[in-house]
Amino acid sequence: MASIDQYLETHAEAFEEELCRFLRIPSVSADPSCAEHIRRAADWVADQFRGLSFATEIIPTSGHPLVYAQSPPVAGAPTALVYGHYDVQPPDPLDQWVSPPFEPQQRNGNLYARGATDDKGQLLTHIKGVQAWIETQGRLPVNVKFIIEGEEEVGSQGLERFITDHADRLACDCVVISDGAQFGPGQPAITYGLRGIAYFELRLTGPNRDLHSGSFGGSITNPANALARMLAGLVDDQGKVQVPGFYDDVVPLSDREISELAALPFDEQQYLRQVGVEGATGEQGYTTLQRRWARPTCDVSGLWSGYQGDGAKTVLPAVAGAKFSFRLVPNQDPDKIAAALRQMLGQLCPVGIRMELIDFHASPGVLVSLESPYIEAAARAIAHAFGRRPVFTREGGSIPIVTAFREALRVDTLLLGWGQDDDNTHSPNEKFCLADFHHGIRASARLWKELSQIPRNGS
Amino acid sequence: MASIDQYLETHAEAFEEELCRFLRIPSVSADPSCAEHIRRAADWVADQFRGLSFATEIIPTSGHPLVYAQSPPVAGAPTALVYGHYDVQPPDPLDQWVSPPFEPQQRNGNLYARGATDDKGQLLTHIKGVQAWIETQGRLPVNVKFIIEGEEEVGSQGLERFITDHADRLACDCVVISDGAQFGPGQPAITYGLRGIAYFELRLTGPNRDLHSGSFGGSITNPANALARMLAGLVDDQGKVQVPGFYDDVVPLSDREISELAALPFDEQQYLRQVGVEGATGEQGYTTLQRRWARPTCDVSGLWSGYQGDGAKTVLPAVAGAKFSFRLVPNQDPDKIAAALRQMLGQLCPVGIRMELIDFHASPGVLVSLESPYIEAAARAIAHAFGRRPVFTREGGSIPIVTAFREALRVDTLLLGWGQDDDNTHSPNEKFCLADFHHGIRASARLWKELSQIPRNGS
Repeated sequence: MASIDQYLETHAEAFEEELCRFLRIPSVSADPSCAEHIRRAADWVADQFRGLSFATEIIPTSGHPLVYAQSPPVAGAPTALVYGHYDVQPPDPLDQWVSPPFEPQQRNGNLYARGATDDKGQLLTHIKGVQAWIETQGRLPVNVKFIIEGEEEVGSQGLERFITDHADRLACDCVVISDGAQFGPGQPAITYGLRGIAYFELRLTGPNRDLHSGSFGGSITNPANALARMLAGLVDDQGKVQVPGFYDDVVPLSDREISELAALPFDEQQYLRQVGVEGATGEQGYTTLQRRWARPTCDVSGLWSGYQGDGAKTVLPAVAGAKFSFRLVPNQDPDKIAAALRQMLGQLCPVGIRMELIDFHASPGVLVSLESPYIEAAARAIAHAFGRRPVFTREGGSIPIVTAFREALRVDTLLLGWGQDDDNTHSPNEKFCLADFHHGIRASARLWKELSQIPRNGS
Repeated sequence: MASIDQYLETHAEAFEEELCRFLRIPSVSADPSCAEHIRRAADWVADQFRGLSFATEIIPTSGHPLVYAQSPPVAGAPTALVYGHYDVQPPDPLDQWVSPPFEPQQRNGNLYARGATDDKGQLLTHIKGVQAWIETQGRLPVNVKFIIEGEEEVGSQGLERFITDHADRLACDCVVISDGAQFGPGQPAITYGLRGIAYFELRLTGPNRDLHSGSFGGSITNPANALARMLAGLVDDQGKVQVPGFYDDVVPLSDREISELAALPFDEQQYLRQVGVEGATGEQGYTTLQRRWARPTCDVSGLWSGYQGDGAKTVLPAVAGAKFSFRLVPNQDPDKIAAALRQMLGQLCPVGIRMELIDFHASPGVLVSLESPYIEAAARAIAHAFGRRPVFTREGGSIPIVTAFREALRVDTLLLGWGQDDDNTHSPNEKFCLADFHHGIRASARLWKELSQIPRNGS
C-alpha cells in the first residue's frame, strides 16, 4: 500500500480543491429552483467515475437522478456497493453562517460549507479511495459499485424504488456508507446496529361534542383520561413495555457487546447536561448506552385533547389523541408487535370510548455481527488510516436506506462515519474536519485491500 | 291566598305584556353598542320596584349597574334576598331565529325571545309575586330584598365586588334564585346541591429541546410519557380519585337523598344517546345521577405535547401539559385537596422532569339540607303553584354567585328554576313556557307566605 498512501499524500491538496468545487454546487434537493444545480452535481459525480473508466450511468427517477457506476470487473473478488448522496439540506437561516454556505472556507483545520460532511465530503472519500488504486495500481483488488442519489434529504423515493426494481444490478457482498459521525474527535467508530421503529397514532372518541365537565363529569367516560390510562399502561414503572410478547424476540447483548459498550468513553453527566436534564429514567437493569442503542422503547411523540389555550375551560373533551412509537431492536417483528398492541389497547379501551389505531411506518432493526469478516476488514482499514482501532457503536435511530438495502440485497452494511457530532449537519456552519477527510480517503483505499482478503464462500 | 291567586289570574295577560316590553330591550351585556339598552333595562327593572314603593337604587359598578330594591320593613319577619339578572346573551346567529330575538312572539304556549327564560322571564316572576301581595294585601308578610345585576353573562364582576363590600345591606335569611330549569315538563324541581371545583394546569418540562426519539429514546425521561403516567395515577381503575385524603370530608348521601335521586324519572339510555355514547364508566358503586351530582370527579380538560399534525414525527418532546379539574362535593376543602395533589404529583414526577402545577380557580360545593325549613317552604309553594311537589335535584356544575352569597352572607340559597332543559338558553330561539311563567309567579307569591310561617330563632 506504500505507493497508494504516497499518492494520497501527494494529492491531498488537489482532493481538497475538488471537494470545494463539489461544495460550490448548491444542490439543495428540497428547493425546486435548484433543479439545474442538482443536475450539475449529478454530472460532477458521474464525471469523477468516468475519469476512472467506471461504467457510469445517470439514471432518471421520478425526482432527482441517481448516479450509478461500476468498476472494471475483477473476477472472483468480492463486490462492495458504496452508497452516498450528492444533495444537501437547505442552508437557511443564511444570516447565521460565518462564511456563505456555498463558498467553502477553511478555518482551524475545518472546511465550512453546506454538504461538507453531509454527505459530499464523506462520499468523496470513497471516490478518491478507488481513484488511488486505479491511478497507482491500474485496477482495484475488488469490485466496487457506487449508487449515489440526489434525494436523501427529501425521502429517497427514487432510490428506494430503484433498489426494489433493480436488486440484481446492485448485487454485492456488502454495502459501505460514510454519512455519519465518529464516536468523538480522534476516536473512529463502526456502527454495527440500528434500531427499527413501529409508529402509531391512537385516536379516542367519547361524546359527540365537548361537554360541560360540571354537568356531565363523572358520568360520561372522558377520552383524555382514557388516553392517559391507555398510554400509561404501555410501560410499567420499571420501564418495561407491557405489550404482550414485546420482548420475546429480543436478542440479548452478547458479553462482547456489553464490554465494548462499557469500554466506550461515554460521559453520561455531560450527555445529560447537553440536553438540559439533571437525571434520566429508563428501562431498569440497563446502562444509558444500552437503553439508547440496544433496548427497545416506547416514546409518546404527540398528545392532544380539549382546551390547550390560556386559563381554565371546564370541558369534558369529545376526542383525545396521541402519536407514539416503539423503537425496536434487531429481531423484533414490527407486524407481530402491531397486532399485539392493537389487541392490548382494545382491552384497555374503556366503555364509552371508540378507538382508532393508525399504523404508520414500521421497519425492523438492523444488526451486523461483530464477528463478521466485513466488520473486521473495516476495523483494520480504519486502524491503518486513523492510527486507532474503531470502537463499535450502535444507533438508536433507524436509517431507512440501510433497511431497504438489507431487504433487497440481503447483505450487511458497513456504517463508517468520518464526521463529528459537532459538524452542524442540517444547521448553519456545517463543517468537515480536513484531517478526517484525508483519514477517510486513506481508510477507503485500505478497505478495498482488506475486503479482497476475505475468503469467499466457494472460493 | 284566595285574593292573591285571583289577582294573578286577572292580571295574567298584563304580566305577559310587561314581560314582552322587558324582552324588547336588547340588553346584551357583552355588546358595547348595547350600553344604552343596558341602562334602559336597569331603569325598567327599577321602575317596577318604584311602582311597588320599594326603596330602590340603581348602583353603578365598574361595569353595568346593579338594581337594588327593598320592600317596606316587616318587623320580626324573615328576610329573603332575590337575585336575578337583566342582561342577556348575544342573539347570534341571527339567521337561525324563527322570529327576531328582540320581538317576542308567542307560539304553542311559549314566548320566544332572547332572555325569555334567562333570566328576564324568571326574574319577573318574583317581581310579580311581590306585586300581588302589595296590590291585594298592602304589604308583604316578609322582608324581600332584590339584587338584580346586568353582568351575569359576562362574569358578574361588579356584583361579586358589591356582595363582598356590602354584605350588611344584603343580610338575609335565605337567597332565592330562579335562573334555571325544572327537572322536566310538568315536574318542578328544587336544586339543593352544587358541586365545587378545583382546577389545575400541570406543565412538565424534560429536555431543553425536542429530541430525536431514535437517538435519545429510552435514555431521556419523556415528559409526554410522564404526563400520561401522572394523570393516570390520579384515578384508579375503580374510578376512585387517588389524591390522599380526597374523600375524607365527603358527606355520604343520606338515605333520603338516595331515595329521592332513585325516584327521579331519569332515562339513562336516553341521556347516553343524547351525548352519543353507548355506555359510560365512572366511580364504581354509584348510579349515574349520583356520579353527576353528588360524587367528586377528576376530569382532564386539555392535553398537549409534541407533534399534533398529520403523519409521523419521531420526536421526544421537550414539554407536555394538561388541564384538569376535580369537581368537589360539599364539605370537601379545595385548599386541602390542592396541597395533597401538589405533594402527590411531586412524588409521581419522575427524575429528569421539572413540574409546574398552576392552581386556577377553586370553589367549594354547596349543599342545602333537605331538612331545611326554607327548602320545605319552597316545596310547599311550588306544590301549590304547579300542582305537583318538586323533586329534589343537585347539579354537577357550580354557580359562582351562589358560592359568593354563601361566603359573604352565610345563608342558604333556594334554586327554584322555572325553565325547561330545551329552552335554548344561549342559543337561537330561546323560549319560556308561559304556563311556567304564571306558575312561577304563583309559586313566588306563595313562597313569601310560606317563609313568613317559619319559626325564627329567638322569636
